[in-house]
Amino acid sequence: MNTVELIRKKRNGNAFTREEINFFINGYTKNKTPDYQFSALLMAIFLKGMTKEETASLTEAMLYSGKVINLESIKGAKVDKHSTGGVGDKTSLILAPIVAAAGVNVPMISGRGLGHTGGTLDKLESIPGFRTDLSLSEYKKVIKKCGAALIGQTKDIAPADKLIYSLRDVTATVESIPLITASIMSKKLAAGIDGLVLDVKTGSGAFMRKTSDAVELANSLINTAKAFDKKVIGFITDMNQPLGNYIGNWLEVYESVKVLQGETKGDLLELSINLSGAMIYLGGKASSTKEGVEISHSLINNGKAFEKFCQIVKEQNGKVSCIQNLDKYPKSKIVENVYSKKSGYISEIDTFGIGMAALELGAGRMKKDDKIEPKAGIIFYPKIGDKIKKGELIGELRCESAKKVAFVKEMLYNTLSYKTTKASKPKLIKRIIA
Amino acid sequence: MNTVELIRKKRNGNAFTREEINFFINGYTKNKTPDYQFSALLMAIFLKGMTKEETASLTEAMLYSGKVINLESIKGAKVDKHSTGGVGDKTSLILAPIVAAAGVNVPMISGRGLGHTGGTLDKLESIPGFRTDLSLSEYKKVIKKCGAALIGQTKDIAPADKLIYSLRDVTATVESIPLITASIMSKKLAAGIDGLVLDVKTGSGAFMRKTSDAVELANSLINTAKAFDKKVIGFITDMNQPLGNYIGNWLEVYESVKVLQGETKGDLLELSINLSGAMIYLGGKASSTKEGVEISHSLINNGKAFEKFCQIVKEQNGKVSCIQNLDKYPKSKIVENVYSKKSGYISEIDTFGIGMAALELGAGRMKKDDKIEPKAGIIFYPKIGDKIKKGELIGELRCESAKKVAFVKEMLYNTLSYKTTKASKPKLIKRIIA
Repeated sequence: MNTVELIRKKRNGNAFTREEINFFINGYTKNKTPDYQFSALLMAIFLKGMTKEETASLTEAMLYSGKVINLESIKGAKVDKHSTGGVGDKTSLILAPIVAAAGVNVPMISGRGLGHTGGTLDKLESIPGFRTDLSLSEYKKVIKKCGAALIGQTKDIAPADKLIYSLRDVTATVESIPLITASIMSKKLAAGIDGLVLDVKTGSGAFMRKTSDAVELANSLINTAKAFDKKVIGFITDMNQPLGNYIGNWLEVYESVKVLQGETKGDLLELSINLSGAMIYLGGKASSTKEGVEISHSLINNGKAFEKFCQIVKEQNGKVSCIQNLDKYPKSKIVENVYSKKSGYISEIDTFGIGMAALELGAGRMKKDDKIEPKAGIIFYPKIGDKIKKGELIGELRCESAKKVAFVKEMLYNTLSYKTTKASKPKLIKRIIA
Repeated sequence: MNTVELIRKKRNGNAFTREEINFFINGYTKNKTPDYQFSALLMAIFLKGMTKEETASLTEAMLYSGKVINLESIKGAKVDKHSTGGVGDKTSLILAPIVAAAGVNVPMISGRGLGHTGGTLDKLESIPGFRTDLSLSEYKKVIKKCGAALIGQTKDIAPADKLIYSLRDVTATVESIPLITASIMSKKLAAGIDGLVLDVKTGSGAFMRKTSDAVELANSLINTAKAFDKKVIGFITDMNQPLGNYIGNWLEVYESVKVLQGETKGDLLELSINLSGAMIYLGGKASSTKEGVEISHSLINNGKAFEKFCQIVKEQNGKVSCIQNLDKYPKSKIVENVYSKKSGYISEIDTFGIGMAALELGAGRMKKDDKIEPKAGIIFYPKIGDKIKKGELIGELRCESAKKVAFVKEMLYNTLSYKTTKASKPKLIKRIIA
């Protein structure tokens, strides 16, 4: 077997065997295959695709490039959720405590924000003291105690993915269904889960702008999960507007707490409890997703969900008083109201633009080593279909320097399209695939 | 402009502008673009193709990555020939002196053998003392004096091609019509020609096995030549059997001399004078290719063509007595006759296999820095359609060591297919495109 022959094989549109895939993933991970051959192979995969079987083999090879966490010592089912990312998507912070409170373990390995989307780790770290870098034994201890722990990827987990992703990023080979699938699934499977709920987003703030692409990715993820005998449910959900109203790290913790306390309703609550409902069902603590949703509701209403969140924060070294007394959190230097410049019905929201505006304020990263300002962000009220009057308060900017305020305000105005006739609200959950 | 965006553009099937092509060729040649990005781009070009205009722009960018030789000080038309390579293809050695004797300059920049095909430079260097590494001023001097000179590519000529070819070779991106076109044409145009005759080969010993691929390449080469206002004629010729009967470096010089002396007829003579006829026509010394062929015949018959060859050899420092007294050339240690094992009509010849057999004897290179034995090679008599009897002499092996003789004999036997009914002879010149 040699790499040039394998590149030629995929270039000619043929399917790899499991052994061939192992050969080139091992070769690249062990630094035997040069970047320039692997990038040509990635482009051939991008343009010629991979079968279900190849995608599963690729996932397997990447998974076993590193450590697979063994959670067998922890009793009960282990179910995680993966979202493809969006603007204001903070459901992990809400569903992890709900599902843990329902008696299903949530061993969650999350990522950081990049570009227009935020990351669960950055959000949690806005809570003073919160540690996302638990050691493996600390991680297991927290799950045993709370039923949930939220940590970052360690260098032991699927190291092939990190290497390959860096190369994809600079060779225009990111947006490939089989490559995305193997990247997501190798990391999720390494966490030692029994079941997985997928939230594949589509719309102006998602990586998959078209619903058909999101469905294709969801099917690929589901097929791969099934190839590894994992229980799985996939949601196709709307990302044509931010989820909830708060965008920015601490702002999203704040809104999550409000949902967990039963004070905030709307799209964020609805999606969170649908996802948690499915997780509770996959974990065997409900006979259906619908029953799981009902359980989720009651765990919010009886205070158990918020109590669980406090417990997780405490066990991961976070300052619990911050989330118990949200108003004691430090305030941003600049808090600037934003008012509508026009009247009309909101017909479209450029959600990607809102994510980029939050990034400009310091809430996100353009490059991997950029620093984040945890308090920075945007509160944004309009939803598609809303009637807005000129001069009406539509949001709030928070940041540490006045320098970018005018520019970001302009960015925010440009994200809104108005019409004189009412536009229909997008359906939040477009499809459920099991 | 940035490289990732350009990779994405081609990946999505869009055409580059001239400026974009200049940007990435300059970037790669000046070592600003890393190999791993350029190889992803090459694979995207391989799979998504290039338009006529893109191919011309790519040729231009590669051409101007180096020096363009100015031959304006030399009077008269300058016409070269390019062959895509085959087994026993020694027409350059025959047509250069014919065309020069007809009064058309032949500034010929040739290559070395690799794999199953030989190279003009290696053949010429089998003549003791022959220098293919003339300086630019020596090169011009020889052309002024003889009307022809045959040298190797210098590092000043289209350096982008050398860099890009090395990367294509290890990333399975060689067999791409636009990339092959730009590689060939950037070098040919750098030699300062007015006209070009193309010999695109097809069959079992050619890079393009299928005639349709050969026609596609010929059209691409012709379009590109025309984009640079060059006169051009393209021949699609058969490579389903070796051209002539001699394969190996000195053996091919030997056979070329025999053709130039009017002693050897057959396919090699026929193709050589058709190509030289077209070159004489493009150079304005004949009113048609047909007239050019007649002129070629008479230049062989009156001894002027062989006289010109001797002059070129002399001016390039070669030992003329060697070609004037062919039998004085040193003999190979091993000279082994090969006899047919079967009777029947020859229906097919694996010409690639014959090239590989000659390589095994020392006549060729597997890798660029392999050494060549100039005397080694194969004399091979059968042609498709010939009736052969068991035990009849079909050829001769020449080499320096007996070690490989049995193995190479077996290789040679395996190249022959016999039938009981007569197979038709392949047409030598399949098509002429102008």
